[in-house]
Amino acid sequence: MKVGVVGIGHGKFGRREDNTVQELAFEPFRDALEDSGLSKDDIKATIIGSSPEYHKQRSISGVVAEYLGVNPQMTFLVEAACASSSAALHSAVAYIKSGMYDVVAVLGLQKMTELTTPEILALMGRVGDVQWESVFGTTFPGYYAMYARRHMYDYGTTEEHMAMVAVKNHLHGVDNPNAMFQKEIVLEKVLGSRPVASPLKLYDCCGNADGAACLIIAGEEKAKKISDTPVWLKGMGAASASMSVLRREKLNTIPSAVEASKQAYKQAGIGPKDLSLAEVHDCFTIAEIIAYEDLGLAKKGEGSKLIEEGQTYKDGDMPVNVDGGLKAKGHPVGATGASMAVEAVKQIRGEAGKRQVDGAEYALMHNVGGIGQYCFVNIFSR
Amino acid sequence: MKVGVVGIGHGKFGRREDNTVQELAFEPFRDALEDSGLSKDDIKATIIGSSPEYHKQRSISGVVAEYLGVNPQMTFLVEAACASSSAALHSAVAYIKSGMYDVVAVLGLQKMTELTTPEILALMGRVGDVQWESVFGTTFPGYYAMYARRHMYDYGTTEEHMAMVAVKNHLHGVDNPNAMFQKEIVLEKVLGSRPVASPLKLYDCCGNADGAACLIIAGEEKAKKISDTPVWLKGMGAASASMSVLRREKLNTIPSAVEASKQAYKQAGIGPKDLSLAEVHDCFTIAEIIAYEDLGLAKKGEGSKLIEEGQTYKDGDMPVNVDGGLKAKGHPVGATGASMAVEAVKQIRGEAGKRQVDGAEYALMHNVGGIGQYCFVNIFSR
Repeated sequence: MKVGVVGIGHGKFGRREDNTVQELAFEPFRDALEDSGLSKDDIKATIIGSSPEYHKQRSISGVVAEYLGVNPQMTFLVEAACASSSAALHSAVAYIKSGMYDVVAVLGLQKMTELTTPEILALMGRVGDVQWESVFGTTFPGYYAMYARRHMYDYGTTEEHMAMVAVKNHLHGVDNPNAMFQKEIVLEKVLGSRPVASPLKLYDCCGNADGAACLIIAGEEKAKKISDTPVWLKGMGAASASMSVLRREKLNTIPSAVEASKQAYKQAGIGPKDLSLAEVHDCFTIAEIIAYEDLGLAKKGEGSKLIEEGQTYKDGDMPVNVDGGLKAKGHPVGATGASMAVEAVKQIRGEAGKRQVDGAEYALMHNVGGIGQYCFVNIFSR
Repeated sequence: MKVGVVGIGHGKFGRREDNTVQELAFEPFRDALEDSGLSKDDIKATIIGSSPEYHKQRSISGVVAEYLGVNPQMTFLVEAACASSSAALHSAVAYIKSGMYDVVAVLGLQKMTELTTPEILALMGRVGDVQWESVFGTTFPGYYAMYARRHMYDYGTTEEHMAMVAVKNHLHGVDNPNAMFQKEIVLEKVLGSRPVASPLKLYDCCGNADGAACLIIAGEEKAKKISDTPVWLKGMGAASASMSVLRREKLNTIPSAVEASKQAYKQAGIGPKDLSLAEVHDCFTIAEIIAYEDLGLAKKGEGSKLIEEGQTYKDGDMPVNVDGGLKAKGHPVGATGASMAVEAVKQIRGEAGKRQVDGAEYALMHNVGGIGQYCFVNIFSR
């Protein structure tokens, strides 16, 4: 059974201290309902994608379901670190295909500004193995710095290449009113910014943000009744990889991304060359370069050429992160996957305004969890 | 499509300070594989049910998947407070019915002894609404104390009735080698124990425990190939209710449990009288009495009669919590639902040893999340 997206909503990403998690959730849920023309009583289950550790409120899906007014319908939370709402979407698709529910809402949701920065840093470090790795002081940027060093060593990738990714995504972000940072930056700004975990500097890192995004999905027949413009999930891939980097064969690739993208291309019956655009997980600039390779947009080791040649700009051959990516949008952990999916759907519908990629036919999203222990890849099309 | 349980495993519940979460997960996973005769490569996805806030390790499903050796298969974590692994099972059933995966493992998992008691208490309080309720000091036992007071006021339930539940479940627990507490207690011991949140006393409360339990499920055809004794999920119910007690119409019932049990009975095509036994969510003794009523084992207000007359003892008319329940087994939050399901399957198979209910045909499990914001009810049978 084909599964289609029939409603989308996307809140403003950024510092949203004045809003509770349930208030953040309400905005895109309301907009997705309006977009679909459905009422909340049509929603048979609401699946929340979020990393609950960053919230003071526990049992998030309980408090959100109440606030949205969807009781007594089923709800639960899905967590897969930074890929939480992609995992939630994957699970929601299973419910639709199973026939257990005919319409399901997926809500990516995160508040990152409730805790103090030291608390957040401590939690983030523990997304690595606490028995063998984080106990020795690894941090999240530290892991990606290792990937960057290895990629530089193996393929000659430079700090300038990484900086180019930041420049591109900030330029794209200017046209996204939901982005945390809507301002252009220049290469020198990135290269001159303070080191976070060498070779990664401040402007190589995405920003912690609060935010939420929502998708409403349904099976083929139902979706066609609800919407004149359903966008179909043509290919889905989901994979895991060892969490400890000490058990990874190579540090210049994310093996779960390679596996998940294989599955997605196969199911969609297309290859990388057929894509009109890709939303990739640029939590750090090096991650986008590695994603080019893992997704087959570039040959292994040639990711840096793609950005150097400007091919991944909106008007290039293979536009990547035309909404600004995690880099400019901000990265509300649990909301990021849903945000990518919303952008993909908008692009396929041709409703992306200034960000619109002409004639977008196939849009891919690539959402990595943690330091690569999860990856979800989806391909959307009409 | 019918969905069947083809493998089960259950670790020891209790204080397991010497084990990491991944080690706790390994025991029942290994046992469930052995029970099913499958190898780990047959497992297409592993869904973890857990409340991640209690662990130092984040991204639990990542570290567990690596330790179990199930990479690159898909994994994620499902959270619905104390009903986390029932939500994980529900989600796993959707995957089987959808045809996306043919064999899925569900792993309920929790370590409750990593944090200090004050840290745990603070986290538990925040399973209530942090905006309007827990901020004023409500605790988990405090919520259930309110339910108890209201039930006493409305129906004449007494502290003795509640104590009787503790006595029964401790007696049952003696025959469960996986229980945290394997010792009988007497009524006076319960009644004389120190107040926790009046009228609830220490022995009205279940114990925090570490633990894990695992189920392997498959669709009808596959299940029959794997196992000579598949146990089918004949009825499933899943519902939510408002999390704030201030928005509940009544405090003497858990509305999500009433709704979920209706769904489960309807799907199974049976009523409460057809049940051979029930595993219910006795996080506090009053919760078991309310469960009798919410599940239709007793008329509203007459739950106390059921325990007073001894009907819910193993040899009574309607055995409840023959494995000791949360009260004697201990309550490793995310593992509890999977533990209930494992016991139900054992009973239906006739493999429960000294705990065996003669001729068990239909076994129900009732897993409440938080203070009633979620409930999952499943009915198992041959």
